[in-house]
Amino acid sequence: MRDIVIGMSDGLTVPFALAAGLTGAIASSRLILTAGFAEIAAGSIAMGLGGYLAARSDAEHYASERRREEAEVVTVPEVEAQEVSDIFKTYGLTETESASVVQALRQRPANWVDFMMRFELGLEKPVPGRAFKSAFTIALAYVVGGIIPLGAYLVLADAHRALKVSCAVTLLALLVFGAVKGRFTGTSMWRSGLQTTLIGGLAAAAAFGIARMIS
Amino acid sequence: MRDIVIGMSDGLTVPFALAAGLTGAIASSRLILTAGFAEIAAGSIAMGLGGYLAARSDAEHYASERRREEAEVVTVPEVEAQEVSDIFKTYGLTETESASVVQALRQRPANWVDFMMRFELGLEKPVPGRAFKSAFTIALAYVVGGIIPLGAYLVLADAHRALKVSCAVTLLALLVFGAVKGRFTGTSMWRSGLQTTLIGGLAAAAAFGIARMIS
Repeated sequence: MRDIVIGMSDGLTVPFALAAGLTGAIASSRLILTAGFAEIAAGSIAMGLGGYLAARSDAEHYASERRREEAEVVTVPEVEAQEVSDIFKTYGLTETESASVVQALRQRPANWVDFMMRFELGLEKPVPGRAFKSAFTIALAYVVGGIIPLGAYLVLADAHRALKVSCAVTLLALLVFGAVKGRFTGTSMWRSGLQTTLIGGLAAAAAFGIARMIS
Repeated sequence: MRDIVIGMSDGLTVPFALAAGLTGAIASSRLILTAGFAEIAAGSIAMGLGGYLAARSDAEHYASERRREEAEVVTVPEVEAQEVSDIFKTYGLTETESASVVQALRQRPANWVDFMMRFELGLEKPVPGRAFKSAFTIALAYVVGGIIPLGAYLVLADAHRALKVSCAVTLLALLVFGAVKGRFTGTSMWRSGLQTTLIGGLAAAAAFGIARMIS
């Protein structure tokens, strides 16, 4: 659900801005649709596949760091124990105060490795299969989000009339999805909605200005 | 430096794919440049401003959670002390084993709050001013990255000839920046370079196919 909202509010922004921008230079809805759908294809692949490969790299990074920690608690336990003490020192604790925790972890190697992964390296255990599902959902939501601003151009052959309808529909959709996104990311709904609308509006205005300047 | 590389390798991908895609439908370099620059304007604003506002929300979320924790260690210290014990329990430690650390943190409220922010909530302290600089750098690098694939269309009026040059230049640039990105994100350089090139190539091929299908 979170991925849908994120992909969709992002997908609304760039295809919308590109279509609005091109309307500053081209009067034909057909060309704008061609550019818009090409952008949706490119953007959803870049976002989905890029996100998936990055998540897979993170998972492999986690696995290799974990193997290293597992070896280190066996081969250099004194060094690792010192590292645990050092973590607590950054929170103002003396070695005496943290000694019992260090001792307890040394007796439980699996927990010790978990502790080092999280508190020394700051790495979260990746959830298997989540990367693919999440990337696929975001890419699909990007496609759906991108189609919303292009709808008006599909129906109206005159690009300038289509632009007005597209602006109204898309800015409203950005407000709604920005607000829902705020719920999932812990920001206030009003604020997130207005921010998302502002980003979309500014991006569209800049694209419109640039396209008009060039042509 | 890391921001430059990330912005640039992303900026190379979508404008490249869009320009390549449009070449499947339009023979005029001028229209492709108009769409390409409109995309760069829209994409860099969405990426830069979007990233900046998200980072600012994170910083405010951190500050409000921190105020809550600061109040809680004063008003409900027993509950908070129990939460510290519970964190250690997830690593297999008994309450007796973690008691001296819990006791030590209770004597140092500032360190205690730091500990809860990091280990209970998993939140990192935001660096002031970093959000703006990072977002601005990424947006600027996106613009520079986006200009690379468009260079050939600026020089060659025939879009089909420009496409061939653009592909050669951009796929090479994606390989180089993907490799450098790998260095900064801890992946192998070859692998990151090939992945970045693959994403750009697939995105361009999909955009090309879609544009040709529509027009």
